[in-house]
Amino acid sequence: MTDVRVAGVGLTPFGSHPERSGRDLFGEAALRAFEDAAVDRADVEELNYGNFMGALAEHQGHQAPLMAEAAGVSCPATRYESACASAGVAVREAVRTVAAGDADVVLAGGMERMTNLPTDEVTEGLAIAADDLYEVRAGVTFPGAYALMANAYFDAYGGSREDLAHVASKNHENALPNEYAQYRKEVSVAEAMDAPPVAEPLHLYDACPITDGASALVLVSEEYAAEHDLDASVAVTGTGQGTDRMALGDREHLARTPAADDAADAAYADAGVEAADVDVAEVHDCFTIAEVLALESLGLFEPGEGISAAREGITTADGDLPVNLSGGLKAKGHPVGATGGSQIAELTRLLRGDHPNSEHVPDAEVGVAHNAGGTVASAVVHVLEVAE
Amino acid sequence: MTDVRVAGVGLTPFGSHPERSGRDLFGEAALRAFEDAAVDRADVEELNYGNFMGALAEHQGHQAPLMAEAAGVSCPATRYESACASAGVAVREAVRTVAAGDADVVLAGGMERMTNLPTDEVTEGLAIAADDLYEVRAGVTFPGAYALMANAYFDAYGGSREDLAHVASKNHENALPNEYAQYRKEVSVAEAMDAPPVAEPLHLYDACPITDGASALVLVSEEYAAEHDLDASVAVTGTGQGTDRMALGDREHLARTPAADDAADAAYADAGVEAADVDVAEVHDCFTIAEVLALESLGLFEPGEGISAAREGITTADGDLPVNLSGGLKAKGHPVGATGGSQIAELTRLLRGDHPNSEHVPDAEVGVAHNAGGTVASAVVHVLEVAE
Repeated sequence: MTDVRVAGVGLTPFGSHPERSGRDLFGEAALRAFEDAAVDRADVEELNYGNFMGALAEHQGHQAPLMAEAAGVSCPATRYESACASAGVAVREAVRTVAAGDADVVLAGGMERMTNLPTDEVTEGLAIAADDLYEVRAGVTFPGAYALMANAYFDAYGGSREDLAHVASKNHENALPNEYAQYRKEVSVAEAMDAPPVAEPLHLYDACPITDGASALVLVSEEYAAEHDLDASVAVTGTGQGTDRMALGDREHLARTPAADDAADAAYADAGVEAADVDVAEVHDCFTIAEVLALESLGLFEPGEGISAAREGITTADGDLPVNLSGGLKAKGHPVGATGGSQIAELTRLLRGDHPNSEHVPDAEVGVAHNAGGTVASAVVHVLEVAE
Repeated sequence: MTDVRVAGVGLTPFGSHPERSGRDLFGEAALRAFEDAAVDRADVEELNYGNFMGALAEHQGHQAPLMAEAAGVSCPATRYESACASAGVAVREAVRTVAAGDADVVLAGGMERMTNLPTDEVTEGLAIAADDLYEVRAGVTFPGAYALMANAYFDAYGGSREDLAHVASKNHENALPNEYAQYRKEVSVAEAMDAPPVAEPLHLYDACPITDGASALVLVSEEYAAEHDLDASVAVTGTGQGTDRMALGDREHLARTPAADDAADAAYADAGVEAADVDVAEVHDCFTIAEVLALESLGLFEPGEGISAAREGITTADGDLPVNLSGGLKAKGHPVGATGGSQIAELTRLLRGDHPNSEHVPDAEVGVAHNAGGTVASAVVHVLEVAE
């Protein structure tokens, strides 16, 4: 097993890009990643690409060969789909490929276009990440599903809408300096509390936006980085994946996400670190309650204690354990098939010290990224560490 | 690197199953694979699942967790999509995972439902495997695309509709005893010649049917097979993948499939065999001309010589190099996301000696499977060998 290094990261601005094709977006992210990495694209041996709903949003399946063209690489190219964790699984397999010595250079990431669809079609499109037979046909949408999870959490552990409003306000604050964020807009706790309801207890600012965007990472072996004298100071030292029953009705506890527990356990074991070692985290806050569940699955907080983390200032930029310094899905945006790659790109920038929010984590050495699919029927966790 | 063994294979009957859900089909294939393997499903460490157009055909993305439930396994589960090569890439990653020592037991395969859609929607659905911007909007469908490739072949090397009719007749003949085949029906060369045109020079019997079905393989490490005293006499010794430009207009030569050349080269090198060692092959004959292109990419015939292979009796059941003894996509059927797994299941049965057509290859030791996506913008090749 060799060490896996992040040689370069690339992102498009997250937002609304109705005039741009998917290949255009991913091509831009890849271009930025190659520039950042100073790696010759001719050296890329594999492309792992995440996309969720291209069949609906762009009438385009079989996207991996198109994205290889867009990125200017000529190599085996594969699409991974695991709902909102699509890029997470794409990156995970890239990490394992490099670690196994099967390739020295892999391009991994993802892309999603969503804003080109009418709102009802986006909602329908996103719903294919839930169980069509036993959830969608019964009327479940994702805001509704996460609202059920939030209510189950409140029932089991306590907590309030105000706790969630603190998560929203924190992540919007974090997004302010992020040049890639969709919403660089302050949202106070009072504004979040006063926003219109979506599905109780979730209101407008508890939900992430609809977003277009792409992410790309150039992952290389430690040996390749050394040979080419690359500035690749961040290593992916751990990867883990978990799966749960799809339908909420089949779960034992609506306020727990065991797929993410499993993914975190595996990633920490792979890296040889513990939750207590984590200095900074990017987690899948598609809804504010999802950030809370993620913190608990990652072992950063005990069950029932994640809910107050933002309100108490522990996970804020100036807190002991900053979470979603990128702005998170909440404010940075959530192009679903790109998000897992974006989280690792942001974490890499934070650990390298070149993120606009790096000043809040000057001594961070260990970061964790948590990417979830659906109502966390799928989860992928990665551990990143400063290697030199 | 450990040896990767096929411990068990499972297929549903290929055909029209409008009353059955996708999870029901994959669950049946997995059940059969576990029975065949005599492996405890609790030992499965990962599920790699291929599906192409579930978002359109079943309004269901994020299928991997559902298929884990259906198969009765509790482990990381990932969907792979590479058009008609979806199961091929799923199996390839499973092979690499076992070979790398990351898991001892992986369940791999795929599923597709197609017959539940109206014909025009199936055609539209399949079209998402082509380039939406530069092919589909210009009116290209897959029969049309393969017709262009056939005409280009005839122009470059010669050949005729009758040569292709021999491919169709051969594969229908092979399907007769196959209990899983969709069309167990003799088709003479004259009948194929007289069938109505689809896209010249391709007529009805040059095209594979629309099919529902699933495939599953239990892949294990050599060590696991030995420890559990499994009857796993067939090994996957080589895997390769290739990618080409997506749109036909961007290709240098419409009658060559370099993605499959690359995949074959890599698979042979991985296995340490040469084309001359191959005793039996399952290739991606979505159209008769595709079988010809596959034979040449696999190095089994020189460019321009594959076209006469069936007519001359070389690739027939009693020939020197039987091809598509399963009946191929042509007659066995083509549930696109399942096909790559089905080919390896059939090849395993042929090499083990328990396929209804095994009598034609009693001494076969090396088999090759060729799975293609779109107009071979993606290709995956596997080498299977009798190991003991």
